[in-house]
Amino acid sequence: MPLLVMKFGGTSVATLDRIRRAAKRVGREVAAGYDVIVIVSAMSGETNKLVGYVEETSQLYDAREYDAVVSSGEQVTAGLMALTLQEMSVPARSWQGWQVPLRTTGAHAAARIEEIATENINTKFGEGMRVAVVAGFQGIGPDGRVTTLGRGGSDTTAVAFAAAFKAERCDIYTDVDGVYTTDPRITDKARKLDRIAFEEMLELASLGAKVLQTRSVELAMRYNVRLRVLSSFEEQSDEAGTLICAEEDIVESKAVNGVAASRDEAKMTLISVADRPGIAAAIFVPLSEAGVNVDMIIQNISEEGRTDMTFSCPVAQVKRAEKALNDAKEAGDLNFRQVVADTEVAKISVVGIGMRSQSGVAAKMFQTLRDEGINIKVIATSEIKISVLVDRKYTELAVQALHDAFELEKA
Amino acid sequence: MPLLVMKFGGTSVATLDRIRRAAKRVGREVAAGYDVIVIVSAMSGETNKLVGYVEETSQLYDAREYDAVVSSGEQVTAGLMALTLQEMSVPARSWQGWQVPLRTTGAHAAARIEEIATENINTKFGEGMRVAVVAGFQGIGPDGRVTTLGRGGSDTTAVAFAAAFKAERCDIYTDVDGVYTTDPRITDKARKLDRIAFEEMLELASLGAKVLQTRSVELAMRYNVRLRVLSSFEEQSDEAGTLICAEEDIVESKAVNGVAASRDEAKMTLISVADRPGIAAAIFVPLSEAGVNVDMIIQNISEEGRTDMTFSCPVAQVKRAEKALNDAKEAGDLNFRQVVADTEVAKISVVGIGMRSQSGVAAKMFQTLRDEGINIKVIATSEIKISVLVDRKYTELAVQALHDAFELEKA
Repeated sequence: MPLLVMKFGGTSVATLDRIRRAAKRVGREVAAGYDVIVIVSAMSGETNKLVGYVEETSQLYDAREYDAVVSSGEQVTAGLMALTLQEMSVPARSWQGWQVPLRTTGAHAAARIEEIATENINTKFGEGMRVAVVAGFQGIGPDGRVTTLGRGGSDTTAVAFAAAFKAERCDIYTDVDGVYTTDPRITDKARKLDRIAFEEMLELASLGAKVLQTRSVELAMRYNVRLRVLSSFEEQSDEAGTLICAEEDIVESKAVNGVAASRDEAKMTLISVADRPGIAAAIFVPLSEAGVNVDMIIQNISEEGRTDMTFSCPVAQVKRAEKALNDAKEAGDLNFRQVVADTEVAKISVVGIGMRSQSGVAAKMFQTLRDEGINIKVIATSEIKISVLVDRKYTELAVQALHDAFELEKA
Repeated sequence: MPLLVMKFGGTSVATLDRIRRAAKRVGREVAAGYDVIVIVSAMSGETNKLVGYVEETSQLYDAREYDAVVSSGEQVTAGLMALTLQEMSVPARSWQGWQVPLRTTGAHAAARIEEIATENINTKFGEGMRVAVVAGFQGIGPDGRVTTLGRGGSDTTAVAFAAAFKAERCDIYTDVDGVYTTDPRITDKARKLDRIAFEEMLELASLGAKVLQTRSVELAMRYNVRLRVLSSFEEQSDEAGTLICAEEDIVESKAVNGVAASRDEAKMTLISVADRPGIAAAIFVPLSEAGVNVDMIIQNISEEGRTDMTFSCPVAQVKRAEKALNDAKEAGDLNFRQVVADTEVAKISVVGIGMRSQSGVAAKMFQTLRDEGINIKVIATSEIKISVLVDRKYTELAVQALHDAFELEKA
């Protein structure tokens, strides 16, 4: 029988009533002939409550006990979802991570999936079970203890199950109805995309389109799992939500499919750095060791053996970056005149797999911003993305202008 | 190292603060040189919340899913208790039932313990762990799924662990500070007993002294586990609480150690039953099949081939008993003139292992009640107990008079 994976996040199972609504969606897929693996999160608020207990008990807590406590939330939802399906006469049962078993690394509270055994669940499908409800976000470690997967763990669980069971599709039910060409709060011309390529989604996710955890998209891309994001709060047609899929499944793509904005950016410039081989390492190794997430890096043309080096990082990490650089200077590892931080910038990006084959995207982007009088401070490009740093006050203006220029409101 | 089992009920772990207080008691035993197995219940209110979810979801619920949901409460407390002990620098870790493993029958929601593996936990004790915190009330069934033990399951878990690990003692921390000679709400002369024999405790428990579940006392008696009941809300000396132990451990016992009262009683009389061989079976088999819990049974002297048969049962089962008897009469299995129910009675019992060797207890009991003008409606005796049914309005009077007559206020 064809198989679907359906994942319901915390807000989608927040109450018994919402669990019933989710179960009805599952029932519809069963009626349509699918066997289904349902991955559930904890009822919203539960995980926070449990984490609160742990943190109040212990500051430097034992992550193994954290996992034992926190994993209980998903276990409750899984049992309730199975019961709800049974009430609807759908043969269902619940599975905890260790029962599947879903084996993980031993990194408690941040474990990674190593293997999902399919035999136990497939045996039950063979005996007439139609839905396996699996507690998301958890597995069993090499020590035989419960592990949790860390942030985004439930999405990742869903994708990993879809890969292991060769599911036709993995549907992620959440509180948004799909992926948009840009943030609808910035322009009401923002349009829901029917399809988006994995690569585009990865660029958008890391830029703040917090629909899916990056980790789950990476996993889906690696195993070519067709991922669909859709709302659990709206009635759905078959074409609902956004399908995240391989480039080959997207017949014709525009050059640009989305405009993303990230306000949480700072631009840092090291002025007059002694330009010698190994200078990049001398700068970025200390930053990395200090836990600074460097994003864009630009090296200006050097003059008389000195150069300016610019990079961007989250605003919250500016102080840490300054300290790391000044420490390196004092230690004699690095020679520069001054470090200057501009904490009033935003990153604006246009993303599209069509860029690979269509030229003129960068030119159009720069023209558009120029026509609006927006000065570009830094430029960085990848194969399918062009990003610029601009003054933060221009964020909305830049997004709206680029959305118009690339005609993203049109399908 | 000598080993203790300590069990904390729901009210004793109701908040993080109470968990800390419980952990301090554990820490004290560790400091005194004991390895400890701690059995915890769910934080009070949690189990009811989870059961409420299940019952609201499904009326005739799948007990396997009920177990998956409800067992999560103890898991949370176990993790939090282990963390709290670690904060106090006591090497501790938590175990869920399936991790021990504690193997049970497959009767979900009402499973019985079959085997407790000691190897995993003992290995950790050997490696320096001082406290194993075990989620009570749960195990793993032959199907590999989580089972729960039903009412009183946490007490039973504690006793079973004490038996399996040959613990020196099993301390049950609860919200009362021990077993009393009678209900302190009836007379302020009620005195806490330092020791009581298993057999006495069983008679008292089934009569309404709801300190310990009967099942756990039976198990303790079978494996000769020294059980102590004590309050988690008072500072404790070594002689705190009540020790429930084998008769041999009680040097000298009074004839009577306790007076129990049960108000929830009804007396039923079948008038003019045809007295023939097999008549008792003809009456009590239908009652049993109807789920009526018959307690005392008295057959009056028969006259002219007919007899009166009297029995007692809980008030709530009177209607069911009447129906069962009348159905049997209509079916021709039973011949009687009338069934009469007296729903205004109470059962008063005196209990004591000393009764075995000391005579005159019954006589003193009957005299005492006569002196108070209390009419005895039914009498039943066992080796260590004498019970009577009296009008319910005399309950307090009867208990107070007997407590005085047997001088139970004196140690």
